[in-house]
Amino acid sequence: MTKRTEISALGQFGLIERLTANFAKTNNRHSVVGVGDDAAVIDAGEHYLLLSTEMFLEGVHFDLTYFPLKHLGYKVVVAAMSDIIAMNGRPTQLMLSIGVSARFSVEHLEELYSGIEAACKEYEIDLVGGDTTASINGLSIGVTAVGEVAKDRLVRRSGAQQNDLVCITSDLGAAYMGLHLLERERIALDGHPNPNPDFSGHEYILRRWLKPDLRLDIIRALEAEGIVPTSMIDITDGLASDAIQLCRASGCGVRLYLERIPIAAETRAMADELNADPIVAMLNGGDDYELMFTVPLEMRDKILHFGGVDVIGHVTPRGAVLVTPEGGELPLTAPGFARKEE
Amino acid sequence: MTKRTEISALGQFGLIERLTANFAKTNNRHSVVGVGDDAAVIDAGEHYLLLSTEMFLEGVHFDLTYFPLKHLGYKVVVAAMSDIIAMNGRPTQLMLSIGVSARFSVEHLEELYSGIEAACKEYEIDLVGGDTTASINGLSIGVTAVGEVAKDRLVRRSGAQQNDLVCITSDLGAAYMGLHLLERERIALDGHPNPNPDFSGHEYILRRWLKPDLRLDIIRALEAEGIVPTSMIDITDGLASDAIQLCRASGCGVRLYLERIPIAAETRAMADELNADPIVAMLNGGDDYELMFTVPLEMRDKILHFGGVDVIGHVTPRGAVLVTPEGGELPLTAPGFARKEE
Repeated sequence: MTKRTEISALGQFGLIERLTANFAKTNNRHSVVGVGDDAAVIDAGEHYLLLSTEMFLEGVHFDLTYFPLKHLGYKVVVAAMSDIIAMNGRPTQLMLSIGVSARFSVEHLEELYSGIEAACKEYEIDLVGGDTTASINGLSIGVTAVGEVAKDRLVRRSGAQQNDLVCITSDLGAAYMGLHLLERERIALDGHPNPNPDFSGHEYILRRWLKPDLRLDIIRALEAEGIVPTSMIDITDGLASDAIQLCRASGCGVRLYLERIPIAAETRAMADELNADPIVAMLNGGDDYELMFTVPLEMRDKILHFGGVDVIGHVTPRGAVLVTPEGGELPLTAPGFARKEE
Repeated sequence: MTKRTEISALGQFGLIERLTANFAKTNNRHSVVGVGDDAAVIDAGEHYLLLSTEMFLEGVHFDLTYFPLKHLGYKVVVAAMSDIIAMNGRPTQLMLSIGVSARFSVEHLEELYSGIEAACKEYEIDLVGGDTTASINGLSIGVTAVGEVAKDRLVRRSGAQQNDLVCITSDLGAAYMGLHLLERERIALDGHPNPNPDFSGHEYILRRWLKPDLRLDIIRALEAEGIVPTSMIDITDGLASDAIQLCRASGCGVRLYLERIPIAAETRAMADELNADPIVAMLNGGDDYELMFTVPLEMRDKILHFGGVDVIGHVTPRGAVLVTPEGGELPLTAPGFARKEE
């Protein structure tokens, strides 16, 4: 093999497209949606089954210096199930595949599983498979999320229509600032015999990083109100990146209005303290595990009465742009494939 | 956390039982079988859906010094789908989750995916999800296997009945000797500028390690013959370990007759060459990806005419034993949880 193309040259989405380009179209009559949405869709007769899989690696996705194992267990369930609710589905089953090195004891794994159990209980998910294997490099967690959705309630990334309203389900960027606070304390207290950082006043951003909610409440409320969004995606890579994905899938653009996108006071305060830009945290931070969806313009009043949802812009023919309060337009950009060096 | 119990003290199966003991019984009406069989079973109306997930880690499950990436891609599909056919199912969909470090280029991943594609084509499997993430430690591959089975053809580990015949689908231990041959050559040629090992005469054991078959042919033949085994498991951890699992699940024992368990000539020859015991390779080697199943005694003639299946023993009330040609009885034992040190 002589040619060497760096993965970073393609970016995560270009990479998946290139790798899967040669695969035959679906062979099986029950495969409905394949690669390219939040979850795969399989026809299960009376409803659709939704499937998604995700991998969490120590040193890349989490740092056990400050991430308690119980919280980690909870978070991996939320993170994996977020792909199910992004298709307007209800989570049903979970499978785990865990690699552990000799550093970990049974008690460590019990901590991890107690968080997994708490999330399964809260969101009524069955753990239907668990496999544990040896690892030479710390902790690796593979999660397969399974869900269901009524056939007439499936929402894909690709259904956004011209003039649709773009909605989000929370303020953004808080988890990212929570991560940065923990990183700062880790460095400041490195080598300290009894580290005892004071996190008072930062409870919200820490919770958003350490124990995100699964927005199943939104999926239930949409159903109760009889609303089926035209398109939906979960905000995990940052609003900018996920908005671009939705635009690509739907063949459209979006205009998002900066002053309409909520940023929590704690997020702004921590950004100030760390000399960071809260807008960058909001746009590119990631790990929000919130939803972005589109609804027809006619639903404006219904959505405004819905509660807990902000209308931040609308669908356009092309181009994903952020409009500043002064009326300037900034193109949204997605950061590349995050890589760590070996 | 003061107490520290080593994972090796519990063993892989004791570990999973302990970790999942607190989980609530299934919440969702469609969950049929949870933790404790080869695959999870979900009621999909007209048929059952089968789900299994597995993780393959560089340095634990494979060594890229001698494992070509294309073969690795093929093998991870076979290994993951083996859990589906062990429930008498037909593979349908596959999802991948891959972690790669900066050592790997796009061309490397294309090699890996070409093997995945070859297996998907051969066994008529749809790739419905693929996710790639950064890793700091080489290559990690998570595979989620999906399959289907008619409701009246589902076979579990737990259905073996007294006096049933125990059947296997191939000679065993070949993959294990293939691995040891490759390990020997790797050590012998370490540092050699142009390693060019001569593998002639060892094609069979190498193929069994590098490119195992998925025994979908057996599942199809069982259906064509109208046979539904009473219990089934795939032989991946070694005949002894998997026989013990089947006995535990079925609440029975087995008597297996040593002279009836086939070992290939190449396997014996390599064991001789390496001063290894071919019976240990057969019993504990693992990675065979064959099937062990039980059928009622009345099916003896049908099974003997089936072709490619060996009857190696029968089901007893308790105890898993190997009977030697001299009539001695050896209890089958499963090796513990394989671990590597950090």
